[in-house]
Amino acid sequence: MSELVEASGVPLPTIKYYLREGLLQPGETVSATRASYGEEHVRRLAVIRALIELVGLPVARVREVLAVIDTPGTASYETVGRAISALPPYPDESTPEERAARDHPLARAAIERLGWTWDPRFPAVAQLERALAAAGTAGIPMDDGRLEAYGTHLHAIAETEIALGPDEPSAFLEYAVLGTALTEPVILALRRLAHQDVTARRTRPSPPPQPPQPS
Amino acid sequence: MSELVEASGVPLPTIKYYLREGLLQPGETVSATRASYGEEHVRRLAVIRALIELVGLPVARVREVLAVIDTPGTASYETVGRAISALPPYPDESTPEERAARDHPLARAAIERLGWTWDPRFPAVAQLERALAAAGTAGIPMDDGRLEAYGTHLHAIAETEIALGPDEPSAFLEYAVLGTALTEPVILALRRLAHQDVTARRTRPSPPPQPPQPS
Repeated sequence: MSELVEASGVPLPTIKYYLREGLLQPGETVSATRASYGEEHVRRLAVIRALIELVGLPVARVREVLAVIDTPGTASYETVGRAISALPPYPDESTPEERAARDHPLARAAIERLGWTWDPRFPAVAQLERALAAAGTAGIPMDDGRLEAYGTHLHAIAETEIALGPDEPSAFLEYAVLGTALTEPVILALRRLAHQDVTARRTRPSPPPQPPQPS
Repeated sequence: MSELVEASGVPLPTIKYYLREGLLQPGETVSATRASYGEEHVRRLAVIRALIELVGLPVARVREVLAVIDTPGTASYETVGRAISALPPYPDESTPEERAARDHPLARAAIERLGWTWDPRFPAVAQLERALAAAGTAGIPMDDGRLEAYGTHLHAIAETEIALGPDEPSAFLEYAVLGTALTEPVILALRRLAHQDVTARRTRPSPPPQPPQPS
């Protein structure tokens, strides 16, 4: 286990805690006092650390995410949907069945106009409904031009992301979960920077010189 | 003032609170006991409510945002940057000067590769640096293919959003702030739904039938 500490950079008490909580699979027993840990343990530790420290998930949510990742089978859109559903933001505490029974008129209209395959049990539907209602209330309605731009470009981003992912189903699920959680902040920051660039180009005839390089 | 309550839907004690806090500009004095409120008060109330209730900003942050919106002048990329900087997430409590003096190697490399005009004082730079570091740690590095896709499509989204905005500078600033805060949740939800659609198309030869319509 000391080798696992070294290979992963995770302190021993933390590894023992993850083993007790069932987040990390036990090593292969070699003798009464020794167990053997492999590359898959190092990899799993990186996933657990990312979910806890970078995404900020509580241990119970991490267990849910890992359970979906570990389900044998194909990386279908239902399993990807379930894995991503365990990530924040949580629109509410309703079950998938309760969500399916509910109507989401704004989200439904938007998704149907885009022609996407969708599942009303997926929490992103409720998340979209709330976000559209809030934006509309504040005077930023989702008109067709805006929806068309968002739909086209976000679909293209999703296609690239999925094409860059691994083929093997459980590796793909892990990638989908970490990719969703960890690239959302990248996307939001880049969009704010894109706004700054577009505004700069719009308000000046020629682009200003780059800012001085910090020394 | 009772007409303002009716026109805005905001309760009287809340309006008085916003007046005391300096968020809402006073009405024009008509007599010793009467003041006149206009369309601009109704509009400002909608902005205040959106920032407090939908974005979840504390009153002090709302005051900062409104101060930038109210600054006379052009909607340059510096003023848009300052207004958006008052919105969450807050990467840290550093001043613009401190941020400019700091190096952001991952963000710098990404933005320079995209060829965007940028300002190192803008908090989105620090936000991007953190997000890229976290994603890289978890095994999702920002390689050129991913950066190219994000850059191209987010820039196109930003162009559409800015083209849809008003021309008048202070109205544009208000739109930029509310648009940033309120459409980020829309974009994240749509991206998750785009992933579901792409996965569904990838794992099935033909798209499945649409889910049944809730009655």
